[in-house]
Amino acid sequence: MAVWTDSPHPDVSTVDVENFDYEKYNFPELIVKLEDNVLIITLNRPKNYNAFNAPMCSSIVFAFELADADPRVRAVVLTGAGDKAFCAGADLSAGKGAKGDASGFGAGPGVPTLNHRDGGGMASGSILRCRKLVIVAMNGSAVGVGLTMVLPADIRIVSETAKIALPFTKRGITLEAMSAYFLPRLVGHSNALQIAMTGDTYLPTADCMRGLFAAILPQKEVFPHALQLAKRLAAQNSVLSMALNKALLWRTPESPEATHLVDSACIAGLSHASDATEGVRSFLEKRPPQFKGRVEELEQLGFYPWWTQVDVSGRGSTKIVRRNAKL
Amino acid sequence: MAVWTDSPHPDVSTVDVENFDYEKYNFPELIVKLEDNVLIITLNRPKNYNAFNAPMCSSIVFAFELADADPRVRAVVLTGAGDKAFCAGADLSAGKGAKGDASGFGAGPGVPTLNHRDGGGMASGSILRCRKLVIVAMNGSAVGVGLTMVLPADIRIVSETAKIALPFTKRGITLEAMSAYFLPRLVGHSNALQIAMTGDTYLPTADCMRGLFAAILPQKEVFPHALQLAKRLAAQNSVLSMALNKALLWRTPESPEATHLVDSACIAGLSHASDATEGVRSFLEKRPPQFKGRVEELEQLGFYPWWTQVDVSGRGSTKIVRRNAKL
Amino acid sequence: MAVWTDSPHPDVSTVDVENFDYEKYNFPELIVKLEDNVLIITLNRPKNYNAFNAPMCSSIVFAFELADADPRVRAVVLTGAGDKAFCAGADLSAGKGAKGDASGFGAGPGVPTLNHRDGGGMASGSILRCRKLVIVAMNGSAVGVGLTMVLPADIRIVSETAKIALPFTKRGITLEAMSAYFLPRLVGHSNALQIAMTGDTYLPTADCMRGLFAAILPQKEVFPHALQLAKRLAAQNSVLSMALNKALLWRTPESPEATHLVDSACIAGLSHASDATEGVRSFLEKRPPQFKGRVEELEQLGFYPWWTQVDVSGRGSTKIVRRNAKL
Repeated sequence: MAVWTDSPHPDVSTVDVENFDYEKYNFPELIVKLEDNVLIITLNRPKNYNAFNAPMCSSIVFAFELADADPRVRAVVLTGAGDKAFCAGADLSAGKGAKGDASGFGAGPGVPTLNHRDGGGMASGSILRCRKLVIVAMNGSAVGVGLTMVLPADIRIVSETAKIALPFTKRGITLEAMSAYFLPRLVGHSNALQIAMTGDTYLPTADCMRGLFAAILPQKEVFPHALQLAKRLAAQNSVLSMALNKALLWRTPESPEATHLVDSACIAGLSHASDATEGVRSFLEKRPPQFKGRVEELEQLGFYPWWTQVDVSGRGSTKIVRRNAKL
Repeated sequence: MAVWTDSPHPDVSTVDVENFDYEKYNFPELIVKLEDNVLIITLNRPKNYNAFNAPMCSSIVFAFELADADPRVRAVVLTGAGDKAFCAGADLSAGKGAKGDASGFGAGPGVPTLNHRDGGGMASGSILRCRKLVIVAMNGSAVGVGLTMVLPADIRIVSETAKIALPFTKRGITLEAMSAYFLPRLVGHSNALQIAMTGDTYLPTADCMRGLFAAILPQKEVFPHALQLAKRLAAQNSVLSMALNKALLWRTPESPEATHLVDSACIAGLSHASDATEGVRSFLEKRPPQFKGRVEELEQLGFYPWWTQVDVSGRGSTKIVRRNAKL
Repeated sequence: MAVWTDSPHPDVSTVDVENFDYEKYNFPELIVKLEDNVLIITLNRPKNYNAFNAPMCSSIVFAFELADADPRVRAVVLTGAGDKAFCAGADLSAGKGAKGDASGFGAGPGVPTLNHRDGGGMASGSILRCRKLVIVAMNGSAVGVGLTMVLPADIRIVSETAKIALPFTKRGITLEAMSAYFLPRLVGHSNALQIAMTGDTYLPTADCMRGLFAAILPQKEVFPHALQLAKRLAAQNSVLSMALNKALLWRTPESPEATHLVDSACIAGLSHASDATEGVRSFLEKRPPQFKGRVEELEQLGFYPWWTQVDVSGRGSTKIVRRNAKL
């Protein structure tokens, strides 16, 4: 788990997550609520089209770290307040935004280039690291970091009238928030290049957006559909299975054969876990399964995590991120 | 070539493949037939919706190893018996399936997790290693390993009424058969995540399936269409070219420049082979080519195979796979 | 920049690029023209359907090297003369083509296989290395290298009646011009395998072509649409941003975290550049930006290029390519 030393939030490892009261805690710029094992996170700056800024970033990171750790949370829905925008991108009206940082964080006058850490990437990274199912209800337009930060999510549902753009080339900046990694893997390089090089605005139905959204719906149906899907999958699916699938797809070994070694170990390791036994038993008994597995069980498999990650902890003179040996 | 030490089948290197009688040999759970240079492999448990089990797995591996080695075979069609299912997935009613192993093989009570090899991956691996064109005629529904094992095939033709699902999250298990490697490369990460995380059942026409099937046809037309395509391509195309294309696409070097070095060598190497001479000559003479090249010629190119593979031979206390130095 | 020792063209580093007269210089097999910051490169063998040969190859490489270096050039449009073909592939009627080399270059009788460099790859490589926006106006059919050489371009616009084929399997040769690297990244492995294994001819509207073309238009509209788009993006977008986006998408670090480190540095580095300041300022002032950045500024960022490339300079006994330390 990441620890952001000057974050206003506590280190999640010091929090009693199973008893954490999401509605009582102050998440600046967010509304956070737990409902039927689904954590609902709402970007809450509707007057500013939910534009992304530093307090929103640290709140997002903390909320997703809690979601990852809290066994009550089996799925997350991320949405925006209001019916116009999901997130209008970095708040360029803020002082540091004027430095040209799409994240809402400038490198700052005294910070060397190579010490800077992009805020969009901290947000998208927290979604990537969250081992629970993440569904995004894009209730309206998404611009810049408003789109890039949700690329590592599992499922995106979008309003049919949303305007989507990555206007970095029009601002003299670049793809951020690790979007150069995620976007071509979601829509292919051809579409990714078109979206990124033009900087133009597209509707979700545009050909170049194909693959990005699991459903394109009337604005009013976006959040209810996403929430219903999250609740159904939270109730129906094994969180262990979802966490491993997500890891297998984003942390895929480098070849088919290496994948065979890892997925064979996953299958064998899970075959001793209670969720697999319940999964097969409920199938044979033709009843819905009652899964009780917790993501913490993954750490007991002996080979998880199977990947090594680039350590980003040296970066950032003011915003230091530490990570444990495994993440 | 793989050698599966407790397989009921002989080591393919000991078989006189050019004179092998496919219809006389007993392939448990399969029907195998050679017709006009096309090897037709039919999953044959129609009463069980062609559910995957251990004998079917070893038969598949042996059949694809023969197809790779036999110069009479220029293309393979893989299909299922009956008009309902291509393959209903692992046979969970079998004892070991109840351990939660989608492959139909349990790790077994005495087998350590890290020694297990997933049966689905052995089947999909044999399709990946087969250097001949592989077309799958998905005559009906495909569930779990019924889909994942055919992801390394070259072309999939499917029935428009087939139901497709990877229900691993509903059973407490995970993506297997190297599907975490292949699925996102076939349909993109966005669709792969949707299919894998939900575990839901989709028709082949669903948006998230886009790219998976080269044709979606009425059930009765699936096999005839696949067979006709296989026969046409077997007659028309160079097996050397098809084998190298397949290798270039799945064993692509790590960068554009590295690919330039390898494909330059392929072009130069083939330019001395008889198929390239015949290809250009027949083009200039406006007649169909008569290709006589054999895949064995690849080994004489001096740089084939250009990739190194993770060795999986140490895996599996009872099922050992050995491979020669090159594969 | 590449230096092709027996190219008829000068080393681009010895050319006064800012004052280079494109219309006066003799580009064999091409017409090259600079118009409103857009370099228009036209394949000019209309009687031969613009078939690719050695002089065309060296002209393409030199033209794209100039486009990369010349600050007047902010975008490139590549098209073909006539209304039937963009490029009919390698000119097989040429002597060396008969050796089976799709590039129009045979390895030559005295050239060892491993010293050969494919001409298609030299052309596609020059497009990949060009840091300016590259739009292809595919005014007609594209066969073999006619398609593969433009796969690294940013945007492809195609005629709705164009016939598209990679007929390598029908000629006894293979995927060349680094197409095994680019094609699956543009259309997915499933479609790439179908196109490459069959060798069949497809219309741009075929399912397996999805993602390849940003627009499919009536023949007469292809070039005007491409030119208008190029002029708009040349005027509107930062060349620094476009160059970095292109690099981020094709030279993506190996993991999300490594990408975070690189894109954070890009954002921070650019935040000190004039284009980013102008980008944010013009946005807040609600006026079009006036970008003056030059791609040479990238070299001052301290971390560009962040990737290392396989050195291909040892290849080719007659056609040597050298590269500077950075490219």
